Amino acid sequence: MLVDASYTVPLLKVTQGADDAFADDAVATEEPLEIRLTYGALTHRQTQNVAVTMRTPGYDAELAIGFLFTEGIIKDQDDILSSNHAFIACAENRENVINVELQPHVVPNLGKADRNFYTTSSCGVCGKSSISAIRTVVTYAGTNADDVIIDADILYQLPYTLRHHQEVFDSTGGLHASALFTLDGKLLELREDVGRHNALDKLIGTSLNKNWLPIADKVLLLSGRISFELVQKAAMAGISIIAAIGAPSSLAVELAQEFNITLVGFLRQQRFNIYTAAHRVNTAS
Amino acid sequence: MLVDASYTVPLLKVTQGADDAFADDAVATEEPLEIRLTYGALTHRQTQNVAVTMRTPGYDAELAIGFLFTEGIIKDQDDILSSNHAFIACAENRENVINVELQPHVVPNLGKADRNFYTTSSCGVCGKSSISAIRTVVTYAGTNADDVIIDADILYQLPYTLRHHQEVFDSTGGLHASALFTLDGKLLELREDVGRHNALDKLIGTSLNKNWLPIADKVLLLSGRISFELVQKAAMAGISIIAAIGAPSSLAVELAQEFNITLVGFLRQQRFNIYTAAHRVNTAS
Repeated sequence: MLVDASYTVPLLKVTQGADDAFADDAVATEEPLEIRLTYGALTHRQTQNVAVTMRTPGYDAELAIGFLFTEGIIKDQDDILSSNHAFIACAENRENVINVELQPHVVPNLGKADRNFYTTSSCGVCGKSSISAIRTVVTYAGTNADDVIIDADILYQLPYTLRHHQEVFDSTGGLHASALFTLDGKLLELREDVGRHNALDKLIGTSLNKNWLPIADKVLLLSGRISFELVQKAAMAGISIIAAIGAPSSLAVELAQEFNITLVGFLRQQRFNIYTAAHRVNTAS
Repeated sequence: MLVDASYTVPLLKVTQGADDAFADDAVATEEPLEIRLTYGALTHRQTQNVAVTMRTPGYDAELAIGFLFTEGIIKDQDDILSSNHAFIACAENRENVINVELQPHVVPNLGKADRNFYTTSSCGVCGKSSISAIRTVVTYAGTNADDVIIDADILYQLPYTLRHHQEVFDSTGGLHASALFTLDGKLLELREDVGRHNALDKLIGTSLNKNWLPIADKVLLLSGRISFELVQKAAMAGISIIAAIGAPSSLAVELAQEFNITLVGFLRQQRFNIYTAAHRVNTAS
């Protein structure tokens, strides 16, 4: 079964002062995706379930690769031999299992991912230890160039360009988007998903396939709010400028500060806030 | 360190056609919370880390209890002996570890939670098997009364009441909310968090403490979109009416249909859509 990014359901539309109306409307598709990893020497290949995520079908291979990379399980696109939907007996969910095969020499880092990211010591979890933990796994820390500059006038335009291209959101109102733009505002890639972390993993997986990492000379645009997890994934990919239509969390700001990432929030209606590394935004015009 | 739900950061406000302005603004606090579970006979007590979630501090005990219940790890509020922040050496993160102690006779269901919910068989993951899996763990399936009715005129008012009471959102623009209302529109409880699943777990944990389950004669209002995970948590708590300001996903609609839960989406500006179990909404006025 090939599943689409949206499908139509029947519903009742209720409006104050008007008659109720039966209608059909599109909703964003949400289905589980099981990510499996096959690795080991050719004489000892093994396959392991790594995660199940609720996602919108489409770009599953990119999602899996982006997830494995941003979780620190693989280090490089060259680690990957192939990435395919698994052959399983039940035809109905064949699209919901993706198997990533690693090169025989690659040893994946399958330590418990949340422990990798949230704590470095016996002292336990806190924002500071979470940030320190990321420092130990990030490949591109410190590669962010300070001479990458974007004009405020370009930033103002990004949300309009995003909305113009967000096909599934327009029909369902139900999807998060992550997009990469050039510094002069050209849209390079856009990914959508019911989960904001999945949209970003799809985008980073695509970027890995295109050999774009570290993504130092582009702008990441997020359709919603900015959590710690999204900045963490961006840091893994070497992204130096993040702009979002929504608000950042406290720990998102702290992490961006620590990694010298420019963080722009509330980008809407010809306004925005710069939280960190403001030197990459040219506001003179 | 007692952490607050929001705190102030410095930023640069940029507006087209106006001067840049340095300012201080509140952002929603995001910090990791480690949930530990202590269980077993008094002679063999053991403590285990169950999860780490990125949450907004506040109502941590309710969040932990709600999480354990909606994940199917505990079945009843009577399973719980106590729920307290753990005493750990590092003062800075003492608020970020919560320990739930179970009664000595209680055996928690610590099977891998995502496998509990996403798959029932060797056939693998798909929407249908995810829904079947939930049927095996839900306590209150089939208890949803069909004579619980809410008037459309009451529903129209709920988003205004919510916004009026959303203190932290107003200051940060960065929080999801879950709230319970009576059928005549009175706000009972409201919880906010950077994570939408955390806001709902806090609300359900509070409801467990108040002995409100199954929550059949109240309305759950969600500030954003409706995912499978949110309907799953609501189903665990026996909620029969869910209303949301945002859009539902495909699997959220399917799960609500399967469990006879009324699902209302796009509730804004005196309009809404009813996706499932429309008989609980009285649109005649």
